Amino acid sequence: MQDLFTINNLWMMVATILVFIMHLGFASLEAGLTRAKNTVNILFKNTIIPAIGLLTYALVGFNLMYPGAGFEGSVFGFAGFGLSLPEGWDSSNYNEGYTYFTDFIFQAMFAATAATIVSGAVAERIKLGPFIFFSVLYVAICYPIVGMWKWGGGFLNTLDTPFYDFAGSTIVHSVGGWGALVGAFLLGPRIGKYTERGMSAIPGHNLPLATFGVFLLWFGWFGFNGGSVLSASPGAVSKVFVTTSIAASAGAFGALIFSYLKFKSYDITMVLNGILAGLVGITAGADQMGVGESAIIGFIAGGLIVFAVVFFDKVKIDDPVGAISVHLVGGVWGTLAVGIFGDLAGWGQFYSQLLGVAAVGFFCVLFSGLIFYTLKKTVGIRVDEREEVEGLDINEHGMRAYPDFASKD
Amino acid sequence: MQDLFTINNLWMMVATILVFIMHLGFASLEAGLTRAKNTVNILFKNTIIPAIGLLTYALVGFNLMYPGAGFEGSVFGFAGFGLSLPEGWDSSNYNEGYTYFTDFIFQAMFAATAATIVSGAVAERIKLGPFIFFSVLYVAICYPIVGMWKWGGGFLNTLDTPFYDFAGSTIVHSVGGWGALVGAFLLGPRIGKYTERGMSAIPGHNLPLATFGVFLLWFGWFGFNGGSVLSASPGAVSKVFVTTSIAASAGAFGALIFSYLKFKSYDITMVLNGILAGLVGITAGADQMGVGESAIIGFIAGGLIVFAVVFFDKVKIDDPVGAISVHLVGGVWGTLAVGIFGDLAGWGQFYSQLLGVAAVGFFCVLFSGLIFYTLKKTVGIRVDEREEVEGLDINEHGMRAYPDFASKD
Amino acid sequence: MQDLFTINNLWMMVATILVFIMHLGFASLEAGLTRAKNTVNILFKNTIIPAIGLLTYALVGFNLMYPGAGFEGSVFGFAGFGLSLPEGWDSSNYNEGYTYFTDFIFQAMFAATAATIVSGAVAERIKLGPFIFFSVLYVAICYPIVGMWKWGGGFLNTLDTPFYDFAGSTIVHSVGGWGALVGAFLLGPRIGKYTERGMSAIPGHNLPLATFGVFLLWFGWFGFNGGSVLSASPGAVSKVFVTTSIAASAGAFGALIFSYLKFKSYDITMVLNGILAGLVGITAGADQMGVGESAIIGFIAGGLIVFAVVFFDKVKIDDPVGAISVHLVGGVWGTLAVGIFGDLAGWGQFYSQLLGVAAVGFFCVLFSGLIFYTLKKTVGIRVDEREEVEGLDINEHGMRAYPDFASKD
Repeated sequence: MQDLFTINNLWMMVATILVFIMHLGFASLEAGLTRAKNTVNILFKNTIIPAIGLLTYALVGFNLMYPGAGFEGSVFGFAGFGLSLPEGWDSSNYNEGYTYFTDFIFQAMFAATAATIVSGAVAERIKLGPFIFFSVLYVAICYPIVGMWKWGGGFLNTLDTPFYDFAGSTIVHSVGGWGALVGAFLLGPRIGKYTERGMSAIPGHNLPLATFGVFLLWFGWFGFNGGSVLSASPGAVSKVFVTTSIAASAGAFGALIFSYLKFKSYDITMVLNGILAGLVGITAGADQMGVGESAIIGFIAGGLIVFAVVFFDKVKIDDPVGAISVHLVGGVWGTLAVGIFGDLAGWGQFYSQLLGVAAVGFFCVLFSGLIFYTLKKTVGIRVDEREEVEGLDINEHGMRAYPDFASKD
Repeated sequence: MQDLFTINNLWMMVATILVFIMHLGFASLEAGLTRAKNTVNILFKNTIIPAIGLLTYALVGFNLMYPGAGFEGSVFGFAGFGLSLPEGWDSSNYNEGYTYFTDFIFQAMFAATAATIVSGAVAERIKLGPFIFFSVLYVAICYPIVGMWKWGGGFLNTLDTPFYDFAGSTIVHSVGGWGALVGAFLLGPRIGKYTERGMSAIPGHNLPLATFGVFLLWFGWFGFNGGSVLSASPGAVSKVFVTTSIAASAGAFGALIFSYLKFKSYDITMVLNGILAGLVGITAGADQMGVGESAIIGFIAGGLIVFAVVFFDKVKIDDPVGAISVHLVGGVWGTLAVGIFGDLAGWGQFYSQLLGVAAVGFFCVLFSGLIFYTLKKTVGIRVDEREEVEGLDINEHGMRAYPDFASKD
Repeated sequence: MQDLFTINNLWMMVATILVFIMHLGFASLEAGLTRAKNTVNILFKNTIIPAIGLLTYALVGFNLMYPGAGFEGSVFGFAGFGLSLPEGWDSSNYNEGYTYFTDFIFQAMFAATAATIVSGAVAERIKLGPFIFFSVLYVAICYPIVGMWKWGGGFLNTLDTPFYDFAGSTIVHSVGGWGALVGAFLLGPRIGKYTERGMSAIPGHNLPLATFGVFLLWFGWFGFNGGSVLSASPGAVSKVFVTTSIAASAGAFGALIFSYLKFKSYDITMVLNGILAGLVGITAGADQMGVGESAIIGFIAGGLIVFAVVFFDKVKIDDPVGAISVHLVGGVWGTLAVGIFGDLAGWGQFYSQLLGVAAVGFFCVLFSGLIFYTLKKTVGIRVDEREEVEGLDINEHGMRAYPDFASKD
């Protein structure tokens, strides 16, 4: 018994480390898919966000997300500021799978993800200060409240047919995705993106960096999904490894095939985002799907983002890295897929999934809209034109990411 | 008992994650050691190959490689398409070390390696479509058939003195190496590599990337070799960690010393490939060697690649990243070393090792030769001259890896 | 019992892998924070140092650091050359937490760290040969002797109030830091760093690389600190994960706030070094601190390096990457903090901490001073002026890190 607890906790700690490195994955992907003149800014945001996530999650987030007994079925709960060790925190009395500290740190690593996703969509034009202000509130308050609805025992968990979201297609990824959508919409597109002569691609400056990002995210996803089993249970975790990897692979092919059909070229950025879409898509039901179902879900997710990217460009929502397509569209698709495929499939489940998507979307749009709009009308959220053209690095940070290299123009 | 199964399975899952990230290592190393104008192409190949590996291994590879009872001592077996969970798949009834899904996913991560190795040797001039076609067949059919000969209980495993290949110096690395040799030979050298005035070095465009690649490969090798113990057995796995790391370190020095003697300079690419050669070299006998023997095997492997690189240049087989030297020469050396050093050493073993090397080499040369030659005579395998000079990125992918940076010329 | 041993050993092996990848972190950080013309040189050093560390630790280091029974309370001990397996090496008879080989390889991964830290401070101007000579001696002799004083049962461990250094703020980081200080002092500043018109910043050439380095170091630190529990004990390891991550996060904010107050800009390099300072700072007492205390220690460490960097520039000790500030100042601070905060706090402990800091500092300054000074007076330690201006890559290695890119000037 004690041994099994030690094993379970070990896996949860390893999973924590894996989720941690996803933040480097996000940093790398976002930096790689944007321009060299904004790289320092992106690295800065993506370095400070995990630090914000960890500190605020210790201060308020963890106790907002897991308020404990008495809040079953609620929409809000809070167990007080700071961490406090319950009796038996380091034994299976706390939980069969992990200690109190493991519980906290695993969940804390998830928390920053939401803001990181937003970061990609608003890149290359948002002011640093307001973005950090938004991130603190989004990570510290919005994310844990939504998370509580399902994982903290809230109202989505107590529906007759409970909403199901295994590792967070909705609870994590769509939360980021909705914030990304609102932010990108309120900011407006980057200068030069949509002109009278149509949409012009603004290519990412460093594709090895982008590739690193995606591989690191996949790497970390073994912990993100595998750790969401909340124990080292051999059958459950190994199944999740397979469904996750198969969906990622199928996502690559979905994106490859549809982007080739549409653009007649082998677009590496589509394949990379296809992998991510596959991963986001399988996340809600990674423990519920068979191998074939995982392939279908991933393939559709990969295909979907090709159309989503085109769609958002058509409506002139400028998302430099495709974060909205991957995390919002992929997240919604993955969540609904739990009602269509796998062990829980059925109309009742599908309806609950829809409800969960809608509730989370409503709250996140409201929350992020309120903050971004207030910031926009007061301090402003967008850098001025000169700064955007020259690059945020030199203006906000007084340095360049690659000072030894000559730039193209 | 159940606890031990859970521990063993946990280690096998962690090893799986480590082998997964080797694909990023390969991508990074290959991109770093080639030119910037072909970087997108290399990233594309190395991103899609693991996806191919996972999907085809699920579809046919796993059941070709492990056809199960009734195929002992054979050269071919097949247990049918797709994955199907046997009774007790998630318990020690399946295996004391892992569940069915862990078994599959660990092996699947190995599968793509063979094609990835080929990718390096044929880089900067092969057409994308034909290469992907080759990769699918090589990963889905050639690799698992060869793997079955030893790990699936085939004829190399039932010799009087069974062929020994702990983690795949021959079964994985030389399989990639033979395909690399055949591919590089049939393609011919890159334009400008061997001219009338002799051989001209074509330097890699990003040495930090290459260094990342080698460190990630070493990192992953703890899972590649350590996972090949197939359990978390403390003595066996920790021994493999030590032999693997000592061989890698000695490989660095072997390459450093011989390349310094030969070229009078401290060549980082030689040291990097020396580490890999040490790793490939120890792989066949990582569980059989003492610390001193590991150092000798690694040192010789590191030294060997210096001469191998020179040799392949002399015979005008152009291998941009040194993949043939590392994986074929290193793999053969490591396999034979099991007959020379360690617990199994002896003439009988040496002969079996030679036989294994020869059988695998024969089949892989035949298989890859047949495919590459057929492709060459039909659709063609080499991009046209203009495309090669301009770079594959702009021609096959319509994009550049580093659009914001000015290039040298 | 056997199961628990297997679990413990598994965690120690995973921790080993994590500490291994820190060497890539160091390579990446150091390369990123220096100029492109010296990148190959830095990659070379940071690739060869782990190899040196592993080989010399097997040959002499391990037996110098852990001489075994009979040397309690001493200043020096040696158990002979090479590794030799004791009876019961692979069972809990050796240790409840790990096998002999795990013990060796985990400790060996630490060993190279000391020289790697020095590497950063002496970058861009030290001759390769003498630096490697220094590294061999520092890693093989100086580090294990100092390590023995505490971890090998030496005199710092047998004080009435024993010196405490959980994972090596002093034993590892300050050892590197003192060598870095001595090396940077004896070498003198880089050409152009301190001129008559004052100090001119020499910016790092690749900030994504630097960011990768810091994230990989944080990633590895879960193994560095978490593995220092020397078992998988759920409460102890998970606590260390939390204190380590909170300190790193608070370090980011300490550096951010003080550097913003001082320089009025959002300096990513300060934030990155602030994270590292937080990590170094918590390392001595990661198992002794509460969450709040960890935040304070990390925040102060992050703030301290801002002033330390300014101070070392004022006294014209040129440290291109801030290694002295992070590892020496951060290490001393973290060591003393064990006497101020946490379960051991008190004047007696503080005095022992001071004594440990002083003893280690005295020995390391003497040792590194003797070697560097002797080298300086004989073969020379600094490259000539032309070579420094042109870059070490082309002169010592005959190659460039980025040959396809046009440089700024």
